[in-house]
Amino acid sequence: MSYNLLKGKKGIIFGALDEKSIAWRTALRCHEEGAQLVLTNAPVALRMGEINKLAEVVKAPVIGADVTNMDDLKKLLEASMEHFGGKIDFILHSVGMSLNLRKGKHYTELDYGFTQKTLDISALSLHRVLRAAWDLDALNEWGSVVSLTYIAAQRVFPDYNEMADAKALLESVARSFGYHYALRRKVRVNTVSQSPTRTTAGSGVKGFDGFISYAEKMSPLGNATGDECADYCVTLFSDLTRMVTMQNLFHDGGFSSSGVTQGVIDQMEK
Amino acid sequence: MSYNLLKGKKGIIFGALDEKSIAWRTALRCHEEGAQLVLTNAPVALRMGEINKLAEVVKAPVIGADVTNMDDLKKLLEASMEHFGGKIDFILHSVGMSLNLRKGKHYTELDYGFTQKTLDISALSLHRVLRAAWDLDALNEWGSVVSLTYIAAQRVFPDYNEMADAKALLESVARSFGYHYALRRKVRVNTVSQSPTRTTAGSGVKGFDGFISYAEKMSPLGNATGDECADYCVTLFSDLTRMVTMQNLFHDGGFSSSGVTQGVIDQMEK
Amino acid sequence: MSYNLLKGKKGIIFGALDEKSIAWRTALRCHEEGAQLVLTNAPVALRMGEINKLAEVVKAPVIGADVTNMDDLKKLLEASMEHFGGKIDFILHSVGMSLNLRKGKHYTELDYGFTQKTLDISALSLHRVLRAAWDLDALNEWGSVVSLTYIAAQRVFPDYNEMADAKALLESVARSFGYHYALRRKVRVNTVSQSPTRTTAGSGVKGFDGFISYAEKMSPLGNATGDECADYCVTLFSDLTRMVTMQNLFHDGGFSSSGVTQGVIDQMEK
Amino acid sequence: MSYNLLKGKKGIIFGALDEKSIAWRTALRCHEEGAQLVLTNAPVALRMGEINKLAEVVKAPVIGADVTNMDDLKKLLEASMEHFGGKIDFILHSVGMSLNLRKGKHYTELDYGFTQKTLDISALSLHRVLRAAWDLDALNEWGSVVSLTYIAAQRVFPDYNEMADAKALLESVARSFGYHYALRRKVRVNTVSQSPTRTTAGSGVKGFDGFISYAEKMSPLGNATGDECADYCVTLFSDLTRMVTMQNLFHDGGFSSSGVTQGVIDQMEK
Repeated sequence: MSYNLLKGKKGIIFGALDEKSIAWRTALRCHEEGAQLVLTNAPVALRMGEINKLAEVVKAPVIGADVTNMDDLKKLLEASMEHFGGKIDFILHSVGMSLNLRKGKHYTELDYGFTQKTLDISALSLHRVLRAAWDLDALNEWGSVVSLTYIAAQRVFPDYNEMADAKALLESVARSFGYHYALRRKVRVNTVSQSPTRTTAGSGVKGFDGFISYAEKMSPLGNATGDECADYCVTLFSDLTRMVTMQNLFHDGGFSSSGVTQGVIDQMEK
Repeated sequence: MSYNLLKGKKGIIFGALDEKSIAWRTALRCHEEGAQLVLTNAPVALRMGEINKLAEVVKAPVIGADVTNMDDLKKLLEASMEHFGGKIDFILHSVGMSLNLRKGKHYTELDYGFTQKTLDISALSLHRVLRAAWDLDALNEWGSVVSLTYIAAQRVFPDYNEMADAKALLESVARSFGYHYALRRKVRVNTVSQSPTRTTAGSGVKGFDGFISYAEKMSPLGNATGDECADYCVTLFSDLTRMVTMQNLFHDGGFSSSGVTQGVIDQMEK
Repeated sequence: MSYNLLKGKKGIIFGALDEKSIAWRTALRCHEEGAQLVLTNAPVALRMGEINKLAEVVKAPVIGADVTNMDDLKKLLEASMEHFGGKIDFILHSVGMSLNLRKGKHYTELDYGFTQKTLDISALSLHRVLRAAWDLDALNEWGSVVSLTYIAAQRVFPDYNEMADAKALLESVARSFGYHYALRRKVRVNTVSQSPTRTTAGSGVKGFDGFISYAEKMSPLGNATGDECADYCVTLFSDLTRMVTMQNLFHDGGFSSSGVTQGVIDQMEK
Repeated sequence: MSYNLLKGKKGIIFGALDEKSIAWRTALRCHEEGAQLVLTNAPVALRMGEINKLAEVVKAPVIGADVTNMDDLKKLLEASMEHFGGKIDFILHSVGMSLNLRKGKHYTELDYGFTQKTLDISALSLHRVLRAAWDLDALNEWGSVVSLTYIAAQRVFPDYNEMADAKALLESVARSFGYHYALRRKVRVNTVSQSPTRTTAGSGVKGFDGFISYAEKMSPLGNATGDECADYCVTLFSDLTRMVTMQNLFHDGGFSSSGVTQGVIDQMEK
């Protein structure tokens, strides 16, 4: 099903590791909606993942880039503009990695070197991407940038560890840079706060299964899937949402506005 | 320009008074996007306004209904379902009136009878509409209801008077009923918090001109227009935003996330 | 234990029904902290409750007042000022009643006449109290008004019914009137969003026991008690919090900032 | 004026540079309220500032510590406990520095090495302080930790640069660590979001004067002073606020809840 919502638009998708990735689902949907794409991920992720399969389907080049490296990002944008023969209309930033989580460090025992890397990869990377675009004036007027985040930025989910803090930082970067880019080029920058999703990245979180079923019970519409998130991102990249900027948008089946649900109460009474 | 985003969908639009109305703009856009419509407004507004012009363009019947009257609302829904030959997919609730504002009563001198009417018309009306639909099981699964609101529900704008309180009540009703309707029929209910807009209704607010130019300066993208709001509502009625519910969504050019802007500071320093 | 935090201050306490009431606990603590008090409640509550016991302990007159009646409120304030020999420094507004809850009407089946009364008693009553004080210029400069609320104003707790909407309205009234009173007399107005508390009023809510134990598990410090809420109100009435106004302050052991807790996850996995 | 609110309590105050510092004002008030104190700051700040004057008045030792150095922090806590002859009851974390601001780097031209230092000093330092206390089990049950922040964490104030992002990170750290410390020792952790204040640190921000007068006009009670912030912190360190945790508390004369004020509108119309 296609509406041609993104016909003629050109976008870059960060973070499509494998077919469970939200970025992967979003690339598919953007392609269906008529967008031309460039795919990118960290060099190590390019090796581990299956991005070439996606690249074939969406007819997009894959250009590796380390999001902590400004030179890589500039090259990515320059190569993308050359590929597109023009400026870029949208970017999906779906990037995050917690080294403390991976190494099993509890929040009260963080390795601060790891934390610094987590913040650098998961949050400051958005600043770098925007700044690379800013320096090259690479985004078209009314361009749209979306970064994926999680409600742990507002409320504590203990197993999410320092990624919660990284997401809070990320959301602030989106607002801060969004202000400047709105004034300069009418570019909008938003974060989408998505339900917990069974991606390869997500499954590294301790107790993820128990948590995902709690979120399911706590969301009146259930957890949003990766495909549904892709649909939502399409609307945010389209011309129909031009005045939405500097927002954190919950795409979560109502989780964020639910204090408790009957499903959770029933479980609590068992 | 049409994407056929609402092809096959049936919707009811409340509150199209004249061509400046956001509801009017939204009806036009929904029609362009392939929706079938029913238009409704209060009997007095039908007389004063120009809704028949709109009805012709969007090929929709006009059915009067007093939003404070359950019988009227049930009849409206029944007649709509008969007209559509089926259930309803979306509703735009764009309804608000402050009697104290109109009569020039300051917030510290409210007439409580007026206040009660303001709340009844501007906020409880959403409950009534949803409840009429609930009783008749009139909404299709994955239906979408949007109500227009304003950021005065979160922060004080003194000239907005008791409408601020009405909007806070309205947003709560959207969340509360949204919970129940999600569980029963996967219907989503959201509010869109729109920039101040130069409508015939809005222009009744004292100091509206000064205020609208302040909001313009305070919004990195400028104030969102009624047409832009219509575009945004289209995305919320479409199938691409199914998992967004119980949210208050700012459509305001970034106003809500701006603490101050350079434009305002410049003005303050004059 | 007394710090004399309220020495020389004069306050009115609304809503002390019996010794479980938060208003009762607050009256005791204000008295200990050196305040002079007037106690008030609805005539029917005065008959049912045990307020005279409290009045003896805190050496305060009891003056009945219907919070939906401006004349009653003016008389209350006039009588209070006469009793105190001067203006009033603080007010605790602990007033709420849901007729639909009482009558077992589900949120989707509200009796709108009941709803109107719920809003009138539970939310507009704060406007009336402030307005009566405003008209009589009854509050001293730097006075403090606190109204008790609940997080259902922000997130849905289905059994809380239309009281959620009433609390959203109440919090908006606090902000709106707080703005005007700050400008005129530097009076501050805040709401305290308290943990669910086993009061006589609260116990009318269906499923309250299950809910209170959920809230206990979801609050890293556990649920806040009525005595703890009384302590907190004392700080808000004192001169140490003069610049806090138009805020909704969570007094809830961390519930509002907890997305999930280990205690809840453990229960979910049973 | 003293209430003995902190009699018998022992606290550590970070960040008293000179007599304009909020930390300085807070140390004075805590001393007046009966607390025993230890003062600390970065070695370079100890040399530049006048902390010894304060130390004399509040009869507290001064112990230098670099907040980016865990060993320094552990030594500080050990020396404090030795000085107090027991554990610690409260901590004021008033620490922040933006290298990009200092060096005149615009938000779109951040030096990322500077940014990393800003985050390390201004936000992760709170994690380090809490973690040093956690490792040594240095806080008494029901202890209280307050960190100072600013509303730029929620809304954009362009001249505040990357400190906005640092404050968002800081507030997240307070919530995250607050969860764990509540469970372990019933310690509470909150941030106080203070009006812009004319401190020596604050005055480094470009356009600070224009901004402070905007904030004054936008706050119904005016900007909160450092002395008023000190009063508020005293209540948060006292036993009267034990159930407030993981909160961001606005101490700002109503700024955060004001969409606009008459004073600002008047200025805009000039």
